Amino acid sequence: MADPRFFRRSGPFTLKELAEIAGAEIRSGDADAVFDDVAPLHAATQGQVSFLDNKAYADAFRTSAAGACIVSSRFADQAPGGMALLVTEDPYGGYARVAQAYYPQGGLTPGVHAAAVVADGAVLGAGCQVDAGAVIGEGAEIGADCWIGSNSTIGPGVVIGDGCRIGPNVTIQFAVIGKDCVFHPGVRIGQDGFGFAPGARHLKVPQLGRVVIGDDVDIGANACIDRGAGPDTVIRTGTKIDNLVQIGHNVEIGSGCLFAAQSGLSGSTKIGNYVMMGGQVGSAGHLNIGDGARIAAQSGLMRDVEPGQTVVGSPAQPAKEYWRQLAALGHLARAKTKKGADT
Amino acid sequence: MADPRFFRRSGPFTLKELAEIAGAEIRSGDADAVFDDVAPLHAATQGQVSFLDNKAYADAFRTSAAGACIVSSRFADQAPGGMALLVTEDPYGGYARVAQAYYPQGGLTPGVHAAAVVADGAVLGAGCQVDAGAVIGEGAEIGADCWIGSNSTIGPGVVIGDGCRIGPNVTIQFAVIGKDCVFHPGVRIGQDGFGFAPGARHLKVPQLGRVVIGDDVDIGANACIDRGAGPDTVIRTGTKIDNLVQIGHNVEIGSGCLFAAQSGLSGSTKIGNYVMMGGQVGSAGHLNIGDGARIAAQSGLMRDVEPGQTVVGSPAQPAKEYWRQLAALGHLARAKTKKGADT
Amino acid sequence: MADPRFFRRSGPFTLKELAEIAGAEIRSGDADAVFDDVAPLHAATQGQVSFLDNKAYADAFRTSAAGACIVSSRFADQAPGGMALLVTEDPYGGYARVAQAYYPQGGLTPGVHAAAVVADGAVLGAGCQVDAGAVIGEGAEIGADCWIGSNSTIGPGVVIGDGCRIGPNVTIQFAVIGKDCVFHPGVRIGQDGFGFAPGARHLKVPQLGRVVIGDDVDIGANACIDRGAGPDTVIRTGTKIDNLVQIGHNVEIGSGCLFAAQSGLSGSTKIGNYVMMGGQVGSAGHLNIGDGARIAAQSGLMRDVEPGQTVVGSPAQPAKEYWRQLAALGHLARAKTKKGADT
Repeated sequence: MADPRFFRRSGPFTLKELAEIAGAEIRSGDADAVFDDVAPLHAATQGQVSFLDNKAYADAFRTSAAGACIVSSRFADQAPGGMALLVTEDPYGGYARVAQAYYPQGGLTPGVHAAAVVADGAVLGAGCQVDAGAVIGEGAEIGADCWIGSNSTIGPGVVIGDGCRIGPNVTIQFAVIGKDCVFHPGVRIGQDGFGFAPGARHLKVPQLGRVVIGDDVDIGANACIDRGAGPDTVIRTGTKIDNLVQIGHNVEIGSGCLFAAQSGLSGSTKIGNYVMMGGQVGSAGHLNIGDGARIAAQSGLMRDVEPGQTVVGSPAQPAKEYWRQLAALGHLARAKTKKGADT
Repeated sequence: MADPRFFRRSGPFTLKELAEIAGAEIRSGDADAVFDDVAPLHAATQGQVSFLDNKAYADAFRTSAAGACIVSSRFADQAPGGMALLVTEDPYGGYARVAQAYYPQGGLTPGVHAAAVVADGAVLGAGCQVDAGAVIGEGAEIGADCWIGSNSTIGPGVVIGDGCRIGPNVTIQFAVIGKDCVFHPGVRIGQDGFGFAPGARHLKVPQLGRVVIGDDVDIGANACIDRGAGPDTVIRTGTKIDNLVQIGHNVEIGSGCLFAAQSGLSGSTKIGNYVMMGGQVGSAGHLNIGDGARIAAQSGLMRDVEPGQTVVGSPAQPAKEYWRQLAALGHLARAKTKKGADT
Repeated sequence: MADPRFFRRSGPFTLKELAEIAGAEIRSGDADAVFDDVAPLHAATQGQVSFLDNKAYADAFRTSAAGACIVSSRFADQAPGGMALLVTEDPYGGYARVAQAYYPQGGLTPGVHAAAVVADGAVLGAGCQVDAGAVIGEGAEIGADCWIGSNSTIGPGVVIGDGCRIGPNVTIQFAVIGKDCVFHPGVRIGQDGFGFAPGARHLKVPQLGRVVIGDDVDIGANACIDRGAGPDTVIRTGTKIDNLVQIGHNVEIGSGCLFAAQSGLSGSTKIGNYVMMGGQVGSAGHLNIGDGARIAAQSGLMRDVEPGQTVVGSPAQPAKEYWRQLAALGHLARAKTKKGADT
């Protein structure tokens, strides 16, 4: 089970309750059987629920001692005997909901710590928890039920919606943020973009925009979102951004995107909805990346990407082309070596 | 206009005043006409000034409703009728100066916040603003008119010149810094370099140098500059470094360089003056990169680069060679596919 | 000598003492001669000790004015006349020990600063120094002789072993940490991994594991280590991680690894012991990287790596193959150009 120093468990739940929570159908097992925890396939025991989402773990599934498993129909008949099966075509989503039921997010302890500093003109909604060392500037408006972690800095005038969780050691300036966002430790939002008019002495171009973030946006540890140069930098509802990502000024990101760690978007690039980006992707500025595009890890975007297109490589190209070139190169190198050996 | 929660506007200015500020010539328009703000081409209205710097926005220029525009002579005759034109061969620099005039940098509120901690032996120049939660160590010397943001840590003995702006949540140790520098939130300066004598147990090599930074240097959010191992790590006057950049120990960077986000320089590499580096560039250690070199985004530097040379790719090579190889590979892959289709 | 604002020197030492400290043999020089500092080859003077470890500096060695030098036997006979020689086959390790003798790590000033906040239930071992603005949560257990830097946040329940040095502006949550670890400024440990069940609304998957770190682990500035999703994220004893590295959830890293800056490991990848990784490496998730593997800078790991194997490139391949392909491509491009010129 999860370390009780850090996590408080709820439950137990019956198989029937779990099926409801997961949005799954009971394929096998006693609806009244009781399960008291979640666990990974290799570690789960009789009283625990696991899940299979990635076929790389099919072997672990076939030999798991888990009492119950959330699984898609195509794997169900490979289950070991006696395992209760909760079948759904979205086993990972089902597991997410079950795990949330066992380990609900901890509530806040409303109040402002004596060692926090809230400027006179700042407004805090009901139920907020402001930890020691947090500093909230003049005119900032924090919604209800927000957590402001210790040693975080919320600049003057910043607006944060209800239910946001701002971790420790975060900086937010020049930003207007929606509801239910989660910012992990060390996030930097709203600093000046990298705008200089180059010359013998590079001239600072005032950065006059903001960062505007929708609802339900998560931003990973030590990620940086620069404010706009004139237009705003925008991240729309439901987008999730991993650690150490860099978002340049004027970038616009649609809804429901998923960006893996250490990616970087240069200024003024526009990203559609539900775009997936692997880790360490880089993008030139002023591009348009269409809805539903998929960008492989370490790609370098130098041109627009069509909606739904998958691109790979640096410079990025359509996946088919990339793999064809890679194969051609491998073939050429082998041919050369063989020829070298022949002569 | 810029959000008044965050920005205070100055002005208005006449076209004549704007021409003087921008260093531009009035090509058309009434010298006494009054303009009260800057705005991007697509959003600007009659009373506002815009600029055209990037030909990708030439269409937006031709259809802009801006009352005035700062533009180079080669685009001037494409202006829509009635637009006042301020012509200069450095429109971006001109815009920077005009935007600075409309939105001058906010002044400081001198004083040390009650929740800041300044060690007894530290020296603060006149006019400094030290925010809540800032911690300044023994023997630190901060010049006049500096801003030390909230929850930043200035270590013992650190020297900072006049007019520096150190954002919130920054750490500076073992460093001597010039005048008029700007460090964005989360910058880390002066920590140990990655120096280990490898073995069964890797031995820490004491890092006995400093970070020495010139005047007018900007460092982006969450960037890291390690101190020297024996020599110093040096960044000279006027260099601008973007977010999440990594500078290893003993690196020397000349004047006027521009490094885009997420680049990383391994230890002891020497960079000349006015070097431009795209995002996510990596460099091996102990290299020499000549004055005025240009390194494309995502390049991997494994050898010295000549002054003025442009290199691309990983491993980086002269631009011409890189593009030739890329073309050859594309040709080969297409030929193979065609041949496959033929047989 | 090292700047006395930041470093306090010990010594002097005789050549004989230095030989003992370095684990080296006196090849030449007076055993009773006294040396009072270390310095790089190009800067060292008569009373100072230097070292030669990298053949790129052999010229500097041949012309150095250093009074003594730690060097391997193969370079010893190139020494300038009059230089005392301390010969060892591990000159960098020898230098590390000598430099540690001249500049021993500063001691702590035990106590909790009045502007630090330690929760009632937290336990601090003897001899700890807790700086201004540090915040230590309920139930945290900090061992003896630890340093907690200013404005750092240690979350509830976190366990830290004896002798750890946690720099300023660090965040640690959901973690159990061994002895003698060094965490540089801005490190983020234990935040949620990037776990979402994708859908129209991406569902947060509770991250129920911890970060478990062995003894003698160093973590660089602004690096991020996410906690496990169910299993723990694990880093074993003696591993050294550079700045701005990203470690995803459930990753397991063996002992004695060295990871250069800005590398990123996706979730659930397992790394053996003594693996070396260059800068800006990326790894897919769920891989196995064998003991002693070497991963070149900027590589992209998409498959398992055998123990002892060296891989290069994106996608990463065995070094020999990578270089062969690169050569073939160069050859092809030159041939095409020549042919073009001929016709």
